[in-house]
Amino acid sequence: MDTPADYQPLTLDTFARRMGDIAPLAERIGADSSAWQVEEVGDGNLNLVFVVTGAQGAAVIKQALPYVRLVGESWPLPLTRAFFEHAALRRQEVRAPGTVPQILHFDETQALIVMEHLAPHIILRKKLIAGERVSGLAETLGLFCARTAFRGSDLAMDTADKKADAALFAGNVALIAITESLVFTDPYFAAEMNHHTEGLDPIVSVVRGDTEMKTAAHEALTAFSTHAETLCHGDLHTGSIMSTDSETRIIDPEFAFYGPMGFDIGMLLSNFLMAYFSQPAHRAPDALAPYQDWILAVIEDICAAFSNEFDRLWDAERAGILFPKSLFEDQGHSSHLARDRMRDGIWQDALRVCGIEMHRRTLSLAHNADFEDIADPATRAPLEARNIMMGRELIRAGETLPNPRALTDMARHFNEENFL
Amino acid sequence: MDTPADYQPLTLDTFARRMGDIAPLAERIGADSSAWQVEEVGDGNLNLVFVVTGAQGAAVIKQALPYVRLVGESWPLPLTRAFFEHAALRRQEVRAPGTVPQILHFDETQALIVMEHLAPHIILRKKLIAGERVSGLAETLGLFCARTAFRGSDLAMDTADKKADAALFAGNVALIAITESLVFTDPYFAAEMNHHTEGLDPIVSVVRGDTEMKTAAHEALTAFSTHAETLCHGDLHTGSIMSTDSETRIIDPEFAFYGPMGFDIGMLLSNFLMAYFSQPAHRAPDALAPYQDWILAVIEDICAAFSNEFDRLWDAERAGILFPKSLFEDQGHSSHLARDRMRDGIWQDALRVCGIEMHRRTLSLAHNADFEDIADPATRAPLEARNIMMGRELIRAGETLPNPRALTDMARHFNEENFL
Repeated sequence: MDTPADYQPLTLDTFARRMGDIAPLAERIGADSSAWQVEEVGDGNLNLVFVVTGAQGAAVIKQALPYVRLVGESWPLPLTRAFFEHAALRRQEVRAPGTVPQILHFDETQALIVMEHLAPHIILRKKLIAGERVSGLAETLGLFCARTAFRGSDLAMDTADKKADAALFAGNVALIAITESLVFTDPYFAAEMNHHTEGLDPIVSVVRGDTEMKTAAHEALTAFSTHAETLCHGDLHTGSIMSTDSETRIIDPEFAFYGPMGFDIGMLLSNFLMAYFSQPAHRAPDALAPYQDWILAVIEDICAAFSNEFDRLWDAERAGILFPKSLFEDQGHSSHLARDRMRDGIWQDALRVCGIEMHRRTLSLAHNADFEDIADPATRAPLEARNIMMGRELIRAGETLPNPRALTDMARHFNEENFL
Repeated sequence: MDTPADYQPLTLDTFARRMGDIAPLAERIGADSSAWQVEEVGDGNLNLVFVVTGAQGAAVIKQALPYVRLVGESWPLPLTRAFFEHAALRRQEVRAPGTVPQILHFDETQALIVMEHLAPHIILRKKLIAGERVSGLAETLGLFCARTAFRGSDLAMDTADKKADAALFAGNVALIAITESLVFTDPYFAAEMNHHTEGLDPIVSVVRGDTEMKTAAHEALTAFSTHAETLCHGDLHTGSIMSTDSETRIIDPEFAFYGPMGFDIGMLLSNFLMAYFSQPAHRAPDALAPYQDWILAVIEDICAAFSNEFDRLWDAERAGILFPKSLFEDQGHSSHLARDRMRDGIWQDALRVCGIEMHRRTLSLAHNADFEDIADPATRAPLEARNIMMGRELIRAGETLPNPRALTDMARHFNEENFL
């Protein structure tokens, strides 16, 4: 691990002294650092996160630690992830303007990013557990996925620039390795850090005994590790999204990597499906069906926004080496067969990733609050079982689903099943 | 272009003075450089190639020029390709021992590689035009393709090492860009540097009018530019192979890149198919059928050697992140479904590349001698037409071919057709 000698984690005591002379921060929140209020709010798995409030406003400082916060110093993790997070945020702001926090300052040595404080935004996952709705959610997320996927790919970029950028992000290897193991591999064998809810053993046996499904899961890993199609966020779950009741932003792209165009949207849909399956433990009976319906509508609308924007960009911004106009439009031929086949391929990749994410969040190390917040294992297990069994179906046969409606229909079907 | 200030192309006059004090060369061929015989033998498209003979033996010096030799200084090309060629040769020697020339010396500034003089080897393409057989040819080539594909991939390598190496080879961007345009794109529109044989216009119209085929061709380019599965040779045609009547070596990997595992074998099979289709112009009638049969047998045997070796390596050397034993064998489950599906995917990729190479060698800039040496356009055109039409069929429907025998059967069928 290459931690710079000058690197020091911020503390509440040293914060004002160390951050007080960073001009963009002082300009944003007020120069009198003696009056700053500082709070450490990090609840993620990896980093320190401070909110600092001054006379004029507030800002967020995210600093990487040289280890995995969730586990401790026994699991070192390079500080360079802050470099890649910052680089990804810069690219996302260009490709999907207005969707990520504004960056005020980046310090590579200290592995810290000073950025806009999003308020009154809260983590979307918390809103979904609380049964809150967000207007415009699906549109923002679908557009983000489509625009970052398309504009970071050989469909749009100069290929020399894209190759150089892909080579740069290959340096985020330690974070990518976490995804390769925790997401794609650990769910499918008795990995040391795994845990799952009491009572799920029969379901776990079904999953780990399904050779065809495991084969498909590692075909998805093959795509993850080799198909450098675009710059992906890399960790686009509902804990990486912050919303008010009408505005949505995407944060935390430290797992950024060049990968399949369907990766982000697949992981995203998965987290909405997990929110859906967990709802019976979070909602009063009369509120359950309407809220579950809303979640499935968000899923369908994300897919529609993605598809519509992908199609729009295909015609409006296709300027790369792939499917150039010289081969199609300039010869009087439509390129829409190529567009449709590529979009279908993205959809297939997304559904496979979707199923795998449903497994890793219930069987691997890092579970999510949708299920974890259900205190009673006897309540949690059957809901997780529905989720796991649908994940298996998506990995096995996602390619047979013709459209997003078939996906939500499948969710409704599994939501009625009792596997335990 | 970043040509070093100290770079100078070798000449016959300066050769002994400049190369005389390179110890590994002097040791190999004899230290008395005044007695060296030097000949420039480069007949490729890009570089200077010298054979130097001393009292004890001979060696080859390949030096990159800062432009494309075939075209001239108007088409600059970075000298760094010598770095990548050298790096690829080193890796190929480890992964497929005995298949590439031994390297005696590498000078990055002068962009030159001093290597073993292969004698009495000659370029395989010349032997195929001359109707000569090479024993063991298919076995050597099939093993080379399987071993370099498997051992350079995430099936075998540590994934951090593989990602770093893929990032390194992304720097070979100028050479990769040549493949992207000359191979995958130029055949399918009226690119400035294209040329084709008089009389082929109707065939060219069929190819360029086939939207579905062009879509599939650029799906293959998508795989080429994004699927960093393994380190490919990148230019594995019969002009990059040197053989005696019983020994075969692979040279010239300056187009090396990380790409699909099926790329090299696809390009290779294509060049044997072009040798096959060109034979009626090169053989006496009584020698034609037996020699064409031999070429098709070589194709089938290359595929068999590749498949057998891929399967052997899958069981014997699978140690990477993909399809690990922890998910399969350690749980008492076979991984052979995964192996078979991956091998089938390689085969599909290979057939598509095969068809595209058949087009680019007859429609784009760099044609090959199999057809070019046929002086009479009226003889050449119908043979090229068979080749182009079969290439189209492979791009469109290669995925429907169940096995190598179906490929050679298809060749026999097209060999009987008259398209003009």
